Amino acid sequence: MIPQIPYNIVTVGGGTGTFVVLSGLRKFDTVNLTAIVSSADDGGSTGRLRDAFGILPPGDARQALVALAEENTMLRALFAYRFSKGDISGHNFGNLFITALSQLLGSDSAALEEASRILRIKGRVLSVSEHPSQLLATLEDGTTIEGEHAIDDCAPGRSRIKTLALTEKKIISEAASETIRTADMIVLGPGDLYTSTIAALLHEGAQEAIRASTGKLVYILNLFTKTGQTEDYSAMMHVAEVERYAGRKIDAILVSTNSFPVETISRYAKEGEYEIVDDLGTDSRVHRLSLASLAIVPPVPEDPVPRSLVRHDAAKLADALMSLL
Amino acid sequence: MIPQIPYNIVTVGGGTGTFVVLSGLRKFDTVNLTAIVSSADDGGSTGRLRDAFGILPPGDARQALVALAEENTMLRALFAYRFSKGDISGHNFGNLFITALSQLLGSDSAALEEASRILRIKGRVLSVSEHPSQLLATLEDGTTIEGEHAIDDCAPGRSRIKTLALTEKKIISEAASETIRTADMIVLGPGDLYTSTIAALLHEGAQEAIRASTGKLVYILNLFTKTGQTEDYSAMMHVAEVERYAGRKIDAILVSTNSFPVETISRYAKEGEYEIVDDLGTDSRVHRLSLASLAIVPPVPEDPVPRSLVRHDAAKLADALMSLL
Repeated sequence: MIPQIPYNIVTVGGGTGTFVVLSGLRKFDTVNLTAIVSSADDGGSTGRLRDAFGILPPGDARQALVALAEENTMLRALFAYRFSKGDISGHNFGNLFITALSQLLGSDSAALEEASRILRIKGRVLSVSEHPSQLLATLEDGTTIEGEHAIDDCAPGRSRIKTLALTEKKIISEAASETIRTADMIVLGPGDLYTSTIAALLHEGAQEAIRASTGKLVYILNLFTKTGQTEDYSAMMHVAEVERYAGRKIDAILVSTNSFPVETISRYAKEGEYEIVDDLGTDSRVHRLSLASLAIVPPVPEDPVPRSLVRHDAAKLADALMSLL
Repeated sequence: MIPQIPYNIVTVGGGTGTFVVLSGLRKFDTVNLTAIVSSADDGGSTGRLRDAFGILPPGDARQALVALAEENTMLRALFAYRFSKGDISGHNFGNLFITALSQLLGSDSAALEEASRILRIKGRVLSVSEHPSQLLATLEDGTTIEGEHAIDDCAPGRSRIKTLALTEKKIISEAASETIRTADMIVLGPGDLYTSTIAALLHEGAQEAIRASTGKLVYILNLFTKTGQTEDYSAMMHVAEVERYAGRKIDAILVSTNSFPVETISRYAKEGEYEIVDDLGTDSRVHRLSLASLAIVPPVPEDPVPRSLVRHDAAKLADALMSLL
C-alpha cells in the first residue's frame, strides 16, 4: 500500500529517544503523528505518583506531550519543569498535571486527551495499555528482576538480560492497536533497548498489530551501548532483539555514522558504555547517515536526571524517516 | 468624586471571604476588579512552598485567581484541585502552578501575571507586597505569637489579641498602593478579622493609600465570631478594629440579617463560635440585608481543610456592593 498524505506515523516506546523523534517529526505538516508510550515506568517522580495514585505512569506520556506541544508557550515550559526543593523535590510539574487531571476526570486516557488539548499538541499521545504494567527481566544466570527502575539501575557485572516480560498479562488498548494497524510507518527506538523500546511491545496484541500493519517498520539504532541492558551488543544483536519482540522483520534500520570527540567517548567508557559496533554489513535495509546531534545538552529544561550525553538530532532523524515513506 | 463606569473596585485581604466577594463581582461587566492578597500566609501547602522556595505565599493568590478565572474550564478546576495521596498530599495544584511559574520566570509578580493570563481571569490579582511577611500577634496577657498559622491555630482559653503587626517592616507594592488610591470602592472582609482582613493592612504605606483614596471604604461583617481572634466581639468591636488598622473611618458596613438553623448554630457553638451580636444600632453607615448563603458547601472542590460552614452569598454580596456605588 502506498502511503497517502497525511502520512500516519506512530512511535512506540518512551524516553528521550522518542522525545527527539517526535520533536523532529512534528515539524512536518504532512504527518499524522501518534506517540504510543509505555505503561511500565516506575522510577522517580513517575514511580511515586504511580504508587500513590494507582495511575498509569505519567513520565513517558509527559515527555511525548512536551515534544508535541505548541512551541514557545509557558504551559509547555511548565510541563517540562522539575521542582528541585522542598517536599516536592524531584517531581515533574507535567507529571503532577497529568495526575491531577486523571483524578479530576476519573480516567488516565481522559487525562491524556485533556492535557493534549490544553497543550495544543500536534498529534496524539496514547498509552499502550489502559492499565499500569510491571516489567520482569530474567537474566542469563537465572536471576529475575522486577520493575523498570530496578532493571535500569544495574550493578556492575550483572548478568545479561535473557528475556523480558510483564509480570502479569496486559492487553494493548484498542486505540493503540488500531493506530499501529493503520500506520504507514512504525518507528521503534532510539532508547534503552529493553526498558524503553521492547517494554512497549510486551502487551498482548502488540505483536499482532505490528504484524497486521502494512506500514514500514523502522528501527533507529542507539548511539552507545547501555550498561545492564546492551553491554557488548553489536548493531546486529540490537536488531535481532527488536525483531524477536516485535514479531516481525524490520524494514529499515537507521544507523548514525557520526564519530564523537575523545572526551565524550571516554566519559561513556567510564560507565562501561561504548559506541555500538556496526556489523550489519551490506544488509540492504540499513541506512547509514549523519544522525547524531553534536550538542551535549539535556533535552528537557530543569531535568536533573543524568541521561545520555549525546543524542540523535531531531531534524536529521525526521528527514531520514520522511525519506523512507 | 462620582465613580465612572467601569467602576474600580479593589478587595484587600485573602481567604474564602474574599473568594466569595470576587466570585460575585466578576459577573458585572461594569467593574474593573483587583484583588490585593496577603503575603503573610504560612500554613499548609502554602507554608511548605513558601519555606522551600522563598516565594510569596501562593494560597491567597490562588484562591483569588480561581474566583476570577474563566468559568467551567479544566484549568480552573485544576487550579482548585488538592492532592490527597502520596508525598504531595495536601498540596494544592494551583499553589504548585504558581510556584513553578515563579521559578521559571524568576519573580512572583511575573508568575501572578502569567497565571492570570493562562486562566483568562477577569481583573487582576496583586500581592500586597513584593516580599513575604510574617505576622506577630501580641496578646493581652503579653504573650507573642509569630506566624499566621500559629495565630489561627488557637488553644482554648487563649488571651485576646491586643495588637497585630509584621515581624519586620514591609512596604506595600507600588501597584497595590496605586490601585487602592484610584479605587472607587475598597472592600474589606468578610474573613478572619486579624489573619485575613487586618493582615493585609499592616504594610507600610497601606494606611496612607487608603486615606488618600476618595473611594468608598466598605466593610463586610463576618457571620460568626472566630475562636482565638474575635471571641465575644460584637459588630461594633469588629468595626473599631478594622478602622484602627485601616487608619480611616469606614463608609459603609454590610451586615447580614439571616438567621441560621439550630444545628448550624450548635455546631459553631461547639467551637466556641457564635453569631455576631449587632450592636451598631442606628448608625447610618450600616446596611442590613439578607447576605448569607444557606447552602453548606466548601467553596473550592477537593479542599479538605475545614473552613466555615456558612458563607456569604456571592450574588447577594455583589448586588449589595454595587448598590453602594
